[in-house]
Amino acid sequence: MKHIQHPTLLINESICRNNIRRMAEKARRNGAELRPHFKTHQSAEIGDWAKEAGISNITVSSLRMAQAFAEAGWKDITVAFPVNILEMDLINSLAGRIQLRLLINSPATAKALQEQLQHPLRFYIEIDTGQERSGLSPRDFERMDAILQQAASSPLLRFHGFYSHPGHTYATQTQEEVESLYQAVENLLLPLKKRYQPQFSDLILAVGDTPGCSRVEDLQTFDELSPGNFVFYDMQQYHKGACRLDDIALALACPVVDVYPERQEAIIYGGAVHFSKDSYLQADGSPSFGQMVWLEEKGWSKPVEGAYLKGLSQEHGVLTAPAEVINRLQPGQLLAFLPAHSCLTADLVRKYYNLNSQSTFSSFSLL
Amino acid sequence: MKHIQHPTLLINESICRNNIRRMAEKARRNGAELRPHFKTHQSAEIGDWAKEAGISNITVSSLRMAQAFAEAGWKDITVAFPVNILEMDLINSLAGRIQLRLLINSPATAKALQEQLQHPLRFYIEIDTGQERSGLSPRDFERMDAILQQAASSPLLRFHGFYSHPGHTYATQTQEEVESLYQAVENLLLPLKKRYQPQFSDLILAVGDTPGCSRVEDLQTFDELSPGNFVFYDMQQYHKGACRLDDIALALACPVVDVYPERQEAIIYGGAVHFSKDSYLQADGSPSFGQMVWLEEKGWSKPVEGAYLKGLSQEHGVLTAPAEVINRLQPGQLLAFLPAHSCLTADLVRKYYNLNSQSTFSSFSLL
Repeated sequence: MKHIQHPTLLINESICRNNIRRMAEKARRNGAELRPHFKTHQSAEIGDWAKEAGISNITVSSLRMAQAFAEAGWKDITVAFPVNILEMDLINSLAGRIQLRLLINSPATAKALQEQLQHPLRFYIEIDTGQERSGLSPRDFERMDAILQQAASSPLLRFHGFYSHPGHTYATQTQEEVESLYQAVENLLLPLKKRYQPQFSDLILAVGDTPGCSRVEDLQTFDELSPGNFVFYDMQQYHKGACRLDDIALALACPVVDVYPERQEAIIYGGAVHFSKDSYLQADGSPSFGQMVWLEEKGWSKPVEGAYLKGLSQEHGVLTAPAEVINRLQPGQLLAFLPAHSCLTADLVRKYYNLNSQSTFSSFSLL
Repeated sequence: MKHIQHPTLLINESICRNNIRRMAEKARRNGAELRPHFKTHQSAEIGDWAKEAGISNITVSSLRMAQAFAEAGWKDITVAFPVNILEMDLINSLAGRIQLRLLINSPATAKALQEQLQHPLRFYIEIDTGQERSGLSPRDFERMDAILQQAASSPLLRFHGFYSHPGHTYATQTQEEVESLYQAVENLLLPLKKRYQPQFSDLILAVGDTPGCSRVEDLQTFDELSPGNFVFYDMQQYHKGACRLDDIALALACPVVDVYPERQEAIIYGGAVHFSKDSYLQADGSPSFGQMVWLEEKGWSKPVEGAYLKGLSQEHGVLTAPAEVINRLQPGQLLAFLPAHSCLTADLVRKYYNLNSQSTFSSFSLL
């Protein structure tokens, strides 16, 4: 790592492959298909690691990301984001070459597709099981029926099932909380399956969020799982109990540029344009934008207690640490930081340095 | 704007040029040089608008950004970030072709430069006037003397003056607060000037932050001003009283993808990977990630009261708005949002659609 000169995202391929393998096994044990959410890494290479773990079908968060992964050879892709009908040309181009799956959450969107779609695709109706982001209320049968009725007038639209992202698991703390939240999700989705199965005998239930899929053992109710973050994990997930510290596969290597022993702080080259402005609350309630680790020959150390990024501006990170840590630092030294939210850090940095192969690869450019 | 299909950053060139012109005039009135901080836009085109307003010399936040602007023809560039000595090759390459100015905040950094520098450059010592980010305590004469002594042993290093970023203006609210904060900054920097002027007769004082440079009228103490954000402004600046709403030169156009009248919310295609996770507190104390405006033929409307992004995930934005607004929305419609923090939004989106010329240009790729 001696060549590193500026903020550089390190990936431990072994940890990442283990995370993928473990989630794939859990899905198999539950009789569910793992369709991992590739928004987290946006990379053909990490996609290949998933393929080698037996993954055939994937999830992404935009049509342009679907296009990039279609070009990388993926043949069955769910865009887990409400259809953006302004991108109808891209929808048609994708639906003509891969098995494209979309989320249709309104009759208006179904109508636009019914009028303009040129190739067959399957669609989900998204259900809001409590996150209060996108998705229909599980009691809004009127809207579900209107979507299904509108879609039925197109021979190209096939209803596949209900999709839900129980992202409110991010607000849970204990194992009991996340399990009872998932029980509530089941209790909301199963009646929908029962209600619509007479018309759609093969309809499925799909969910996916990393805290839930990581912590809940019994996922047999669900046919498809699409967590994303689990390939990397991060400090937010660790503090939710979704992973162990040594499941975290990413760290951002950053040069020390200033050391201020008198205030037990140092400045690193690494800011909001590298980490993102996302943070997490530490055990003592103080916010952190990244947890310091020492760089070691083949990776990084355990977290250094009390050493974390207390603030970020555009390119500056302010590291606070105990005196014995600060006293070991000097300008030009490289440190590493476990990110608060690995999806956003990976999205910003867009390049990975693979510690196992000692080579660099990039994520897709979607600009 | 009918061609827009996905989150697209709109720039009003007239507003942006007016912002630049107004700040340049204020600098002239105060006998100071405006060296605007180009981290905000990272774009050769917007740089040209500054050049046309009489700007010759600029400020950036990384050596790679300096390299990009050097390639775009800028000849005198301050890197307002503590020197990263791991990038010594880039420092030498830049110092050989432009007037490069760096911030040296430690004797160790001065020593590394003294040993490895191949071309002359000027340097500042950065002073922490209260932000508690990078910079020496204004009373740390021991460290200042050690830096100056180390630098004196190199014929290539020339001391230029003291640099300070009074970023704690971002925590002020009233005109009185920001003025008294700037008075305190003067009271910290002037004694330094006096102390070191006998040795360095032409030493200067440089400051730069958008709230301070926008709100404080009397800036005559300072020789150089390097605010950045003022070219665009944003909702954070508006809420600090640093600009009027119609000084904001950027808005992010985003498609509506879902509408939920029953909860007075809509989902837009536009999330943390477009806006950043930065937010601001509205007058009622609730956080907002962006203020909704209507798109109009040649730009955008006044802010729509009560219509703002209450939450962001990777690609989703959750818009909350009064019923009469939500009832006007439908999937496929374009809305626009004044960003919370325009520097980070521009860094993420990296492309501008110029409303005046109806053409698109990109910022530098620094990955």
